[in-house]
Amino acid sequence: MKKVAVIMGSDSDLPVVEKAINTLKDFDIPCEVHVFSAHRTPAEAREFIVNARANGFGAIIAAAGKAAHLAGALAAGTTLPVIGIPVKSSTLDGLDALLSTVQMPSGIPVATVAIDGAQNAALLAAQILSVEDSALAAKLDEARSKAAKAVLQKNSEISKKYSTAD
Amino acid sequence: MKKVAVIMGSDSDLPVVEKAINTLKDFDIPCEVHVFSAHRTPAEAREFIVNARANGFGAIIAAAGKAAHLAGALAAGTTLPVIGIPVKSSTLDGLDALLSTVQMPSGIPVATVAIDGAQNAALLAAQILSVEDSALAAKLDEARSKAAKAVLQKNSEISKKYSTAD
Amino acid sequence: MKKVAVIMGSDSDLPVVEKAINTLKDFDIPCEVHVFSAHRTPAEAREFIVNARANGFGAIIAAAGKAAHLAGALAAGTTLPVIGIPVKSSTLDGLDALLSTVQMPSGIPVATVAIDGAQNAALLAAQILSVEDSALAAKLDEARSKAAKAVLQKNSEISKKYSTAD
Amino acid sequence: MKKVAVIMGSDSDLPVVEKAINTLKDFDIPCEVHVFSAHRTPAEAREFIVNARANGFGAIIAAAGKAAHLAGALAAGTTLPVIGIPVKSSTLDGLDALLSTVQMPSGIPVATVAIDGAQNAALLAAQILSVEDSALAAKLDEARSKAAKAVLQKNSEISKKYSTAD
Amino acid sequence: MKKVAVIMGSDSDLPVVEKAINTLKDFDIPCEVHVFSAHRTPAEAREFIVNARANGFGAIIAAAGKAAHLAGALAAGTTLPVIGIPVKSSTLDGLDALLSTVQMPSGIPVATVAIDGAQNAALLAAQILSVEDSALAAKLDEARSKAAKAVLQKNSEISKKYSTAD
Amino acid sequence: MKKVAVIMGSDSDLPVVEKAINTLKDFDIPCEVHVFSAHRTPAEAREFIVNARANGFGAIIAAAGKAAHLAGALAAGTTLPVIGIPVKSSTLDGLDALLSTVQMPSGIPVATVAIDGAQNAALLAAQILSVEDSALAAKLDEARSKAAKAVLQKNSEISKKYSTAD
Amino acid sequence: MKKVAVIMGSDSDLPVVEKAINTLKDFDIPCEVHVFSAHRTPAEAREFIVNARANGFGAIIAAAGKAAHLAGALAAGTTLPVIGIPVKSSTLDGLDALLSTVQMPSGIPVATVAIDGAQNAALLAAQILSVEDSALAAKLDEARSKAAKAVLQKNSEISKKYSTAD
Amino acid sequence: MKKVAVIMGSDSDLPVVEKAINTLKDFDIPCEVHVFSAHRTPAEAREFIVNARANGFGAIIAAAGKAAHLAGALAAGTTLPVIGIPVKSSTLDGLDALLSTVQMPSGIPVATVAIDGAQNAALLAAQILSVEDSALAAKLDEARSKAAKAVLQKNSEISKKYSTAD
Repeated sequence: MKKVAVIMGSDSDLPVVEKAINTLKDFDIPCEVHVFSAHRTPAEAREFIVNARANGFGAIIAAAGKAAHLAGALAAGTTLPVIGIPVKSSTLDGLDALLSTVQMPSGIPVATVAIDGAQNAALLAAQILSVEDSALAAKLDEARSKAAKAVLQKNSEISKKYSTAD
Repeated sequence: MKKVAVIMGSDSDLPVVEKAINTLKDFDIPCEVHVFSAHRTPAEAREFIVNARANGFGAIIAAAGKAAHLAGALAAGTTLPVIGIPVKSSTLDGLDALLSTVQMPSGIPVATVAIDGAQNAALLAAQILSVEDSALAAKLDEARSKAAKAVLQKNSEISKKYSTAD
Repeated sequence: MKKVAVIMGSDSDLPVVEKAINTLKDFDIPCEVHVFSAHRTPAEAREFIVNARANGFGAIIAAAGKAAHLAGALAAGTTLPVIGIPVKSSTLDGLDALLSTVQMPSGIPVATVAIDGAQNAALLAAQILSVEDSALAAKLDEARSKAAKAVLQKNSEISKKYSTAD
Repeated sequence: MKKVAVIMGSDSDLPVVEKAINTLKDFDIPCEVHVFSAHRTPAEAREFIVNARANGFGAIIAAAGKAAHLAGALAAGTTLPVIGIPVKSSTLDGLDALLSTVQMPSGIPVATVAIDGAQNAALLAAQILSVEDSALAAKLDEARSKAAKAVLQKNSEISKKYSTAD
Repeated sequence: MKKVAVIMGSDSDLPVVEKAINTLKDFDIPCEVHVFSAHRTPAEAREFIVNARANGFGAIIAAAGKAAHLAGALAAGTTLPVIGIPVKSSTLDGLDALLSTVQMPSGIPVATVAIDGAQNAALLAAQILSVEDSALAAKLDEARSKAAKAVLQKNSEISKKYSTAD
Repeated sequence: MKKVAVIMGSDSDLPVVEKAINTLKDFDIPCEVHVFSAHRTPAEAREFIVNARANGFGAIIAAAGKAAHLAGALAAGTTLPVIGIPVKSSTLDGLDALLSTVQMPSGIPVATVAIDGAQNAALLAAQILSVEDSALAAKLDEARSKAAKAVLQKNSEISKKYSTAD
Repeated sequence: MKKVAVIMGSDSDLPVVEKAINTLKDFDIPCEVHVFSAHRTPAEAREFIVNARANGFGAIIAAAGKAAHLAGALAAGTTLPVIGIPVKSSTLDGLDALLSTVQMPSGIPVATVAIDGAQNAALLAAQILSVEDSALAAKLDEARSKAAKAVLQKNSEISKKYSTAD
Repeated sequence: MKKVAVIMGSDSDLPVVEKAINTLKDFDIPCEVHVFSAHRTPAEAREFIVNARANGFGAIIAAAGKAAHLAGALAAGTTLPVIGIPVKSSTLDGLDALLSTVQMPSGIPVATVAIDGAQNAALLAAQILSVEDSALAAKLDEARSKAAKAVLQKNSEISKKYSTAD
């Protein structure tokens, strides 16, 4: 099975990123976790990413805040799909990270998820790997069913408690 | 080879979407093009998407403007990767479509590209298919090289013409 | 009397939505409360909404956050008036939910109220039902009078306490 | 049949508002059209709106740009449903009109549609009247079907022309 | 001496507005304080404002949040200068109130100050009254001098404590 | 009669500012027009403003775009009321000029009007002068009446032409 | 060695600005710290800045919030490089200060750093001084290396702890 | 004399960037012009920047649009001052480029100028070089004087033409 890399621009992003790591574990997808900064350790980031495909990775997840260049910088070094998580920081409510991640120029796409959307980043990585892995596809479908059931259960409880008509 | 679906919410999105179709053709990736509206033809959209994996699709591209629900609505019906193109319309400069596409709730990711970023959507689809297709990966790498060479060529011309020092 | 449906995209929206439920109760308007997700339980949402008119509903209230597709998805399945409450979530201060709810394409309107404006959503539903129900219209007028009196009472207190001229 | 009032804050809003008028005509809904300014002719606006229910109106549509107070000012004078159309003007791309229309305080809802969304405002008015008018509901359903068929027709044409797989 | 009216849209605006009241008191400017809602008590607001000039007022201060129509509604009823304070509420960080207050249509100006800028609203009112009142102008100049001295005092302390060069 | 100064930060602001000049002429208010840059000619701007009250001015209008500091810089040099016109430039649709003009710190208010709101700036200046000038107040009231009549005339025409009910 | 001036618009900016002061100390760069307000003490600010080059300064750092004119006002009085720190205040999340600082008109640049980016302002000042100071350049390079090592150390720890593949 | 590098992310940025090149020429500052893409030619960009100081550069100007990573990517490779020009592209009016350029993380500053502010970028580079070059400082002062005189000339013309009082 292809591995997924989970890369954060700073260890301060870990509380957000952990949800991605845990989701990958839930699906038994092997992952490598790294702290690489597009600006402080560009050489290490580059070294990692240009070898990522050869090293058995199938998708890259990159999380960064503010002028979030990490996902784009990694995307420039590989033709593997790179998933960007814009991380909300202390100002501008995440809008800076979102625009810095998603508004990539032609030629170098970043698959951007919601601000702080770490769980969805992991799911998207899993969905990418599922294209050629029907067992994983089945697991994803099952997780969807489970999530749907949870909603229906909540619906049942709340509808009973709050409805005044039926 | 897996197919890619290119779905637009309205035929008025075609001028943007054509860049995605042409890019897929450049990579010889078979694609099916559809006009499905999340709101006007939800049943047809649903019918298409729940069968997409079984019908040989490997990635879905969805383009829509304003309160752009199409990508999310499709993502809700499959565990294939869904790529969202927010389309700029006559007001708000595309911000509405961007936020409506990217800010998906946990469980249902949409891989969002830049506003009007149709070419990147196609490249992202190709990159997803390339995870298990080394020939396609090679083509993507080659396209990158070609783009880099074009930049270097421009650099050479412009540097010569405008530099006053060397 | 026609019923009002109050639908939230997630049980986490309940603290906001409760104000709508309570306001409907204040006006003795029968309501059915549901948790339906446009993305996690689209089939159940669809099933509910396409039968809503036949089942005696006169207005639908839908509350959701982030890329808030719920109101639009419901509006696509009925020609009853659908009222959207954009719910503020942890990022972007509700702007994402507002734009995702209000910027609907031609053909499928959503009657959008303020971010977290649950009480107004219920009042709007009541006002819609009041078009053919003069008793309800009278109750609404009375509530307006009461609210006006409360303002005048506050005015009287604060004017007395803070004015230095008369 | 109840009438719909279409009120614009300035005659310069007419190009946007005409789509609402035409849509109401398409559904044979009688409408009265007015130019009332919340700021320049507040007394006339007030006079009209406090008598609107008694004068046979079932819904009010109000269009205004910039600090768009018209819909809110009308909503303050009636418990009929008031639909607000934020009109884009020469600056800020309609965001000012949107926020001025939708962010109403508790007690006085405005049913806001998209920026320049005049057609949807008329459809929403029709949907409100349809709650107690099954003939109108049928017409609205029919219009939906027709719109869906138009999308499917476009889908058929575009899919044929652009797909490279089937 | 002309009076200043300080009008808030809701008693919940009082914590912001108190700074305006206190500043007026500091300058011995007589003020009348009111809670008038543009939407809940439009008649009382209108009654007050159309008589404001005759009743000895020289400037009107109006504070409101969200779709803040109060200042504009008052401005429509008088040709006295009306000063608007946009009040920050629980969503959108005051941007809605700012745009709703400042983006007035031609013909009806509102003199808008910063979000929650109640002290400046009172100073602006004082400055308006000072145009024909040289004693008040002198007091305003004196307050400016005092504020400047406070900055210079802070400068002296902080410069001494933190500078490493001189 | 007190004079009004109309100051623009650059001669490129003249097309916007001319509406202010013409409106002042309509009310026979003497005005002095200047091009002073807060950044390029701060000394001249300062020289002018610190003497403005002594030189017979009653209000200052300042128009500037982008990081529009002009109104604030002038306000720092006088306790006369300073009215700021944020001018829209080639980027950001005027939002930069609006925030730079209106968000003044405590102690130095700027009476801000709408983006490109030059006519309202002149009206506001006139309203300020009208506080102690009942003849000017009467002219302003008359202008309001005339504007109201124009709206009513438009209402009459458009209502007749477009209404399908009466 | 040239000195750096660190100027804040209000002593309330000190908690942000201290990071700049401390960073300059880390690099043994002599600094003078001042509280000068563009609006409350413009003369003192002007006096300081027009003599700054003659007094041995090589760079100016200016921090201010809201309609942050300080950096621009200083930049107007010198041709030394002026670095602007937009300070986040209680509303609008720092966007007002950012636009007021960065959107300077042609002729008067301000070198703007991130909202609350005081450390980077000091580093930028050091980098400016390093252009002709190779010892300082070496120190800056060393600080970069140290920062990179800290990231690599974090990478090592976190990668070990969280990776499930290697 | 130290050289200045002017680097653009794409040849499509040339119309904006030319103003920077011309301004440098006006000050007889030798410049090297390059097209380097942070994403398409990261190696060439890196190669250039890590040797920039050794190769006689004193400041770097980088212009890019959308998710504008170029300035930050260059700043990561040198401790020379890097000046960022956010370039407006077809969507979002330059806000994406501004935030992507200015919101840099601690440790790697980018001296950001206004959107499309190429002339100011060149002036800032000149100001940086002027710190140790009094002849250049004199030229900059002279340019400022000339710009001031142009404003005063415009003032004289416009004041004469438009003032109705003196």
